[in-house]
Amino acid sequence: MSEHSSLHINQQRLWNSLMEMAEIGATNKGGCNRQALTELDKLGRDLFVSWCISAGCEIMIDEIGNIFARRSGDAEEESAILTGSHLDTQPTGGKFDGVYGVLAGLEVIRTLNDNHISTSHPIEIVVWTNEEGARFSPACMGSGVWSGEFKLEDIYQITDNDGQSVLDELTKIEYKGLLPAKPRPAKAAIELHIEQGPILENEAKQIGVVTGIQGLRWFDLSLKGEPCHAGPTPMSSRRDPVQSMLPILACCYDLAEKFSPWGRATIGCIEAIPGSRNTVPEELKISIDLRHPDAGTLDEIDEIFRVYVDEVCKANQIEYTLEETWRMEVTQFDDLCVNTIKNATENLDYQHMEIYSGAGHDSLYVSQKVPTGMIFIPCENGLSHNEAENAKSEDLAAGANVLLHSILELAIVK
Amino acid sequence: MSEHSSLHINQQRLWNSLMEMAEIGATNKGGCNRQALTELDKLGRDLFVSWCISAGCEIMIDEIGNIFARRSGDAEEESAILTGSHLDTQPTGGKFDGVYGVLAGLEVIRTLNDNHISTSHPIEIVVWTNEEGARFSPACMGSGVWSGEFKLEDIYQITDNDGQSVLDELTKIEYKGLLPAKPRPAKAAIELHIEQGPILENEAKQIGVVTGIQGLRWFDLSLKGEPCHAGPTPMSSRRDPVQSMLPILACCYDLAEKFSPWGRATIGCIEAIPGSRNTVPEELKISIDLRHPDAGTLDEIDEIFRVYVDEVCKANQIEYTLEETWRMEVTQFDDLCVNTIKNATENLDYQHMEIYSGAGHDSLYVSQKVPTGMIFIPCENGLSHNEAENAKSEDLAAGANVLLHSILELAIVK
Repeated sequence: MSEHSSLHINQQRLWNSLMEMAEIGATNKGGCNRQALTELDKLGRDLFVSWCISAGCEIMIDEIGNIFARRSGDAEEESAILTGSHLDTQPTGGKFDGVYGVLAGLEVIRTLNDNHISTSHPIEIVVWTNEEGARFSPACMGSGVWSGEFKLEDIYQITDNDGQSVLDELTKIEYKGLLPAKPRPAKAAIELHIEQGPILENEAKQIGVVTGIQGLRWFDLSLKGEPCHAGPTPMSSRRDPVQSMLPILACCYDLAEKFSPWGRATIGCIEAIPGSRNTVPEELKISIDLRHPDAGTLDEIDEIFRVYVDEVCKANQIEYTLEETWRMEVTQFDDLCVNTIKNATENLDYQHMEIYSGAGHDSLYVSQKVPTGMIFIPCENGLSHNEAENAKSEDLAAGANVLLHSILELAIVK
Repeated sequence: MSEHSSLHINQQRLWNSLMEMAEIGATNKGGCNRQALTELDKLGRDLFVSWCISAGCEIMIDEIGNIFARRSGDAEEESAILTGSHLDTQPTGGKFDGVYGVLAGLEVIRTLNDNHISTSHPIEIVVWTNEEGARFSPACMGSGVWSGEFKLEDIYQITDNDGQSVLDELTKIEYKGLLPAKPRPAKAAIELHIEQGPILENEAKQIGVVTGIQGLRWFDLSLKGEPCHAGPTPMSSRRDPVQSMLPILACCYDLAEKFSPWGRATIGCIEAIPGSRNTVPEELKISIDLRHPDAGTLDEIDEIFRVYVDEVCKANQIEYTLEETWRMEVTQFDDLCVNTIKNATENLDYQHMEIYSGAGHDSLYVSQKVPTGMIFIPCENGLSHNEAENAKSEDLAAGANVLLHSILELAIVK
């Protein structure tokens, strides 16, 4: 037990900062729509930066708009302890996804300031650009550029549905910084996040010690049939892509079931073209998201799915393209980080369990460059990417306390 | 056999006028995109009107933009013989759907003029406004207002996806006429059309004597689930509307199969909201088109479908709305018209068969006010509502000859 073992963050102050941030992009249903690189994203970033400056941090912005708010450490230790997450949201997102990890990092620094505690290692709160991938794909854009997963010049050219590019929008909101988007010395990175699933709530645990992240595959499937008039064309003469879509999507759900409880299949986008009610569609565009935390199982799911799409389309004379637009390999987090989080949780006496992350996070790319761990707290009914996303103030405080003590353990050389 | 039994239309002139009209809104793939009340629709109408004026017709425009091009008859017979169809197309439509019936009517009048033949009854070529219903729903808008099926004032307020109203667009293209949109005295109406299905081609028949029109039901189905993040939410905790959509759409296809060969199920529009690839959709909006030529069977299909939607949604805790946006009752055409067409076909010695129309047509509403019949000709591979829609010049001529002789039979009082 360290000399700071009784230290706790300020629960009310953390809650207040979350609620103030949530006003930017607030939706009628109590959620947030603060998509990456919009004017609202800028306002959220500006608010965060102003708070960090008040807390005595130095602000650095890199070329992809990642924000680093640095609290200095003792001069002899150069490598930082990173914490943070993201401030952007889904179009119908909530108040906690990402934002919580960023503002809990700020609360940690405020708590250290209040108690005049200095650390050997500097501490940096990071706001990663465009984690959600809702407006600009791919997701985890900022951490992916930083880690070298994506090339900066490629990412700059990516456009949203209105044709606006990342470069233009980053410049417009004045968050295209000069700092090279690449790792600087860091000892560890700890990301705190709501679980975005129901497991902790169902198991009545306040803290999830995250041991790794599920792998995922993203596919764009295009099914091309023959448009024809809804009335006169006998069913036997049709090449209707909807009729091929049905067994293909059923196969995705069957695979998630076969490899339960960790298999996941999600169909987020379906579009029928031309979209006329009395014409068999010429084309269907479908997004498919398949996940599993075991690398071999995910490969098996991937293989079965691809073979089945080919079979169905050939049998029905449907032309198709199946493009893998992104893949995230299964990630195992760093032992030191996982154990540090676990020890901090036990010392604080919170109910806890080990858990996989079902969602991708910036920590995925960060973990490729810096020893990394994650902390989860429960969210109401497991809901996330939903305007009704909610978390209890005491759980939010518990997670921030685990973050505080994990950082203290990592940042203070004894 | 009448004194005009050897009369034939000019095949090349008919073809040329079809190809000239097809240039207006021509698409790269050889089709047409000339949607109702657009600038291109205006250009198509203007061209048709100019041809009719050259052919000596009087032009009348009614309040919903239906065009009547009238060739006078002998003074003592007031009631007209109507023919014609529509000039608007689907967004990815073809060169013949609707246009053929209009320009074949013009070719009949040109042929009568060339041969100095006068008729007892006047002949009117009608261009019905917005048959397709692609830009503005409902379909058969012009004939529906004319017949009293729709109220003019309601129809005027209908808007397209960009919020433009029928009234404004009709006014803008200068086809809001003064003639009341209601029937005037008419003895008969004959509509000539491509089959829009493969039956005549498969049976090697040049002429289809249409005895009636299939009934149809149009539904808008909205399925509402619970949006959640694609990764962390276990499949067993989801309320995913896509998972409910699959059996519901499979049921539609099963019903078409159960009541084959005349049952039809078409899913033209599917939209996932919000449409983010790593979020389970909050809502799916789906259009469903169910058809059958037997009234009792169509009612049975309708009933089974509604019950099944309710069952699936209740079992999966999916909120839904199922709105019937349009229904078209089964139509039987007028015996005199059907027999006149059949006799003309036999006298011309074309291979022919009786057939149902699988598609709705303006003749549906026209038949409620005027004794009506339809003539079909084959189209290539049965394709329609498709840029590859095609028909043989000799078949187009055959249909126009049947139209010519049917009109002569009906219009000349012996």
